[in-house]
Amino acid sequence: MTHTEKTAGQQGSGRQGSGQQKPDHRTADETAVPSPSRRSLIGWGGAGLAIGAVAAGGAVAALRTGDDSAPVAESGAAVPFHGAHQAGIATAVQDRLHFASFDVTTTDRAELIQLLKDWTAAAALMTQGHTVGDGAYGGLPEAPPDDTGEALGLKPSRLTLTVGFGPGLFEKGRFGLEGRRPEALVDLPEFPGDNLEATRSGGDLCIQACADDPQVAVHAIRNLARIGFGKIAIRWSQLGFGKTSSTTPNAQTPRNMMGFKDGTRNISGTDTAALKQHVWAAEKDGAAWMTGGSYLVARRIRMHIETWDRASLQEQEDVFGRDKGEGAPVGKAKERDEPFLKAMLPTSHVRLAHPDSNHGIRILRRGYSFTDGTDGLGRLDAGLFFLAYQKDTRQGFIPLQRGLARHDALNEYIQHVGSAHFAVPPGVRDKSDWWGRALFT
Amino acid sequence: MTHTEKTAGQQGSGRQGSGQQKPDHRTADETAVPSPSRRSLIGWGGAGLAIGAVAAGGAVAALRTGDDSAPVAESGAAVPFHGAHQAGIATAVQDRLHFASFDVTTTDRAELIQLLKDWTAAAALMTQGHTVGDGAYGGLPEAPPDDTGEALGLKPSRLTLTVGFGPGLFEKGRFGLEGRRPEALVDLPEFPGDNLEATRSGGDLCIQACADDPQVAVHAIRNLARIGFGKIAIRWSQLGFGKTSSTTPNAQTPRNMMGFKDGTRNISGTDTAALKQHVWAAEKDGAAWMTGGSYLVARRIRMHIETWDRASLQEQEDVFGRDKGEGAPVGKAKERDEPFLKAMLPTSHVRLAHPDSNHGIRILRRGYSFTDGTDGLGRLDAGLFFLAYQKDTRQGFIPLQRGLARHDALNEYIQHVGSAHFAVPPGVRDKSDWWGRALFT
Repeated sequence: MTHTEKTAGQQGSGRQGSGQQKPDHRTADETAVPSPSRRSLIGWGGAGLAIGAVAAGGAVAALRTGDDSAPVAESGAAVPFHGAHQAGIATAVQDRLHFASFDVTTTDRAELIQLLKDWTAAAALMTQGHTVGDGAYGGLPEAPPDDTGEALGLKPSRLTLTVGFGPGLFEKGRFGLEGRRPEALVDLPEFPGDNLEATRSGGDLCIQACADDPQVAVHAIRNLARIGFGKIAIRWSQLGFGKTSSTTPNAQTPRNMMGFKDGTRNISGTDTAALKQHVWAAEKDGAAWMTGGSYLVARRIRMHIETWDRASLQEQEDVFGRDKGEGAPVGKAKERDEPFLKAMLPTSHVRLAHPDSNHGIRILRRGYSFTDGTDGLGRLDAGLFFLAYQKDTRQGFIPLQRGLARHDALNEYIQHVGSAHFAVPPGVRDKSDWWGRALFT
Repeated sequence: MTHTEKTAGQQGSGRQGSGQQKPDHRTADETAVPSPSRRSLIGWGGAGLAIGAVAAGGAVAALRTGDDSAPVAESGAAVPFHGAHQAGIATAVQDRLHFASFDVTTTDRAELIQLLKDWTAAAALMTQGHTVGDGAYGGLPEAPPDDTGEALGLKPSRLTLTVGFGPGLFEKGRFGLEGRRPEALVDLPEFPGDNLEATRSGGDLCIQACADDPQVAVHAIRNLARIGFGKIAIRWSQLGFGKTSSTTPNAQTPRNMMGFKDGTRNISGTDTAALKQHVWAAEKDGAAWMTGGSYLVARRIRMHIETWDRASLQEQEDVFGRDKGEGAPVGKAKERDEPFLKAMLPTSHVRLAHPDSNHGIRILRRGYSFTDGTDGLGRLDAGLFFLAYQKDTRQGFIPLQRGLARHDALNEYIQHVGSAHFAVPPGVRDKSDWWGRALFT
């Protein structure tokens, strides 16, 4: 058996032990459960002994608080993998991100399906703090380890793995999906000011890995890429070091690389009504296989921070329509005070992005700050990796961004350099289910 | 007064308040002190009011446990800035890194000196959890804020800022330092297998920012770059998401991107005798101004992780000379058991790097894992950003690396793609002192 044959999905079922069956029929996908650390799973093996680390999964117990509830969990805990919706959308935003976009290189539909099954099995393990398959050292000495090992000893860290399908997957002549492309998965229009790089845009598949420990997120992406060897290639990837949005009600809004709080009125992960209205795709919204899913827009937004840093405080506050210290809207005292839009400049970001200026449009944001070295001109390559979820991008990001791209005063200091659009299928219901099953069957 | 004139160093003295004078005469540079969060410093201002955030510095109290002691501090605490040695060397290794290398663009010695004074003042504030100067919103509305603001509300997070001077600073005709270059600051030789990129190598100045919160480290580098506007340009920078070494006695050794523990026998930050013998430059070691300093070698080591991930477990363990699960040396049970070098392959990494194979050479390692997107060939650009401190690089990294570059089995899976060498001056003694004073006066 070769390594590419011996993947997590094929091995996983025999390794997961009876204890791990328990969480499968939960429908709560947002409830974090305490879980033993990866460290506690490896103490039994001794030097080089082949003890399957995943057998310890029986220690994972489910805490139920109901659908769409998103309590702020302890940072080391595990977020349940199975549920009606994929975790990583309404989930309380974790601290760190590793996002990867892949080109599918295989032309074989069966191989693509097997990949999605293998990914699902590996994701179910990794999100619960387990190693993939036999683990880093539990297999045959002659075979490559099933898990690359760098997350051994680390806690589950609220890892969520969220898969998305890009437009290319539905192209005629590839995988027989040409009739299944959702209408909402449109090709994004070109917006004024866009300066998109092909090498930071698009992709057939994406994985969003969020965790409170970056090593756990990087480990997950790396192992999914490894499992896909020969079938996919990484097109681009993005590390995010600091979250810029919160989905937790009344939590402090994190600051972006401009030093401002933005997105105070983000959709809360516990607001079932708002999630239903704005985030979860419904059967009537188009493709039936997307029911319970969502549409993800990812934009790499470079900030010209050196220019921004030389702008006056007044200019900075005018641009956002907030004061810098507290984050309160113009003329108000507190961040969460309702903004009086007419008191703001017509070009201010808060005014332009507010639902009242956009026929009530709301999107769920969970973007991250990035800093990727330098740009060759002595400047930091830094900014915001914008991630937004919505039930239909045609009534979400697209009209919002049309307005912002034309009028937002912020445009002097930012530039969109990467863009991608994905259909994010519903959650994996149980162990017999897998990412995208409704699309392929 | 223009912004470039109005820098932190010139403003800081009037803003620091009486409470902040207290830490100055401490000599312990390794003792972490509890400190209020940046969040607690901003609650007073209200919307747009000009309250100097740094006034709260009086709340910082010093805990003394003696020189070179490096207790594992709570992750939110502050590490004292002043001391005989710079913090960030013997300090218990923090979780995250932002490292920046700068070209000095000014040709004016006085401007360079002023920059170092300004940097020192800003670093003394930021490491204690304060904003730079007037802060993000405390200044005149017509002026740019003194602090970019994205760390407001975050804890000190054990931030350390460590400065280094590259060989270029001592070139004839630049700053009158041609007679002051330490003999130990040699041009690094070319090692077999090196594939160095100029855009990831060298530099006149460096700042190593380590913190338990990456946003705090990024904020610090960004603000130091901002303060240097017009005098310096960022040559390259590197984010490290996970530490790969520990300087804490008997702590778990973190795993690198190959999934292995490496550097179990690192020099401990509390081992005063080993630090004196191997890390701190002594007067007799050359340039008197470097007494109490150290020499830093930074190497960006790309790992071919896709190839590594397809190597068998046996091959991986043979390469390191350890088992993957526990990290024990060949034939031993526990990570910290003394290795029996002759039981290992002559090409194994542990054997080749061990002091017994290198006439007792030891270096202090505090490297970090990195993942910087993709390399254009569908592979993650990932590896180890190696950072090593020693009292004399000619008796440290250079002979060690000569052996490793020739014989190490690991070379099949790694490549050195960036390299830099810096003289790291001694610590800033007190408020009247500044980074590099002994060099320039």
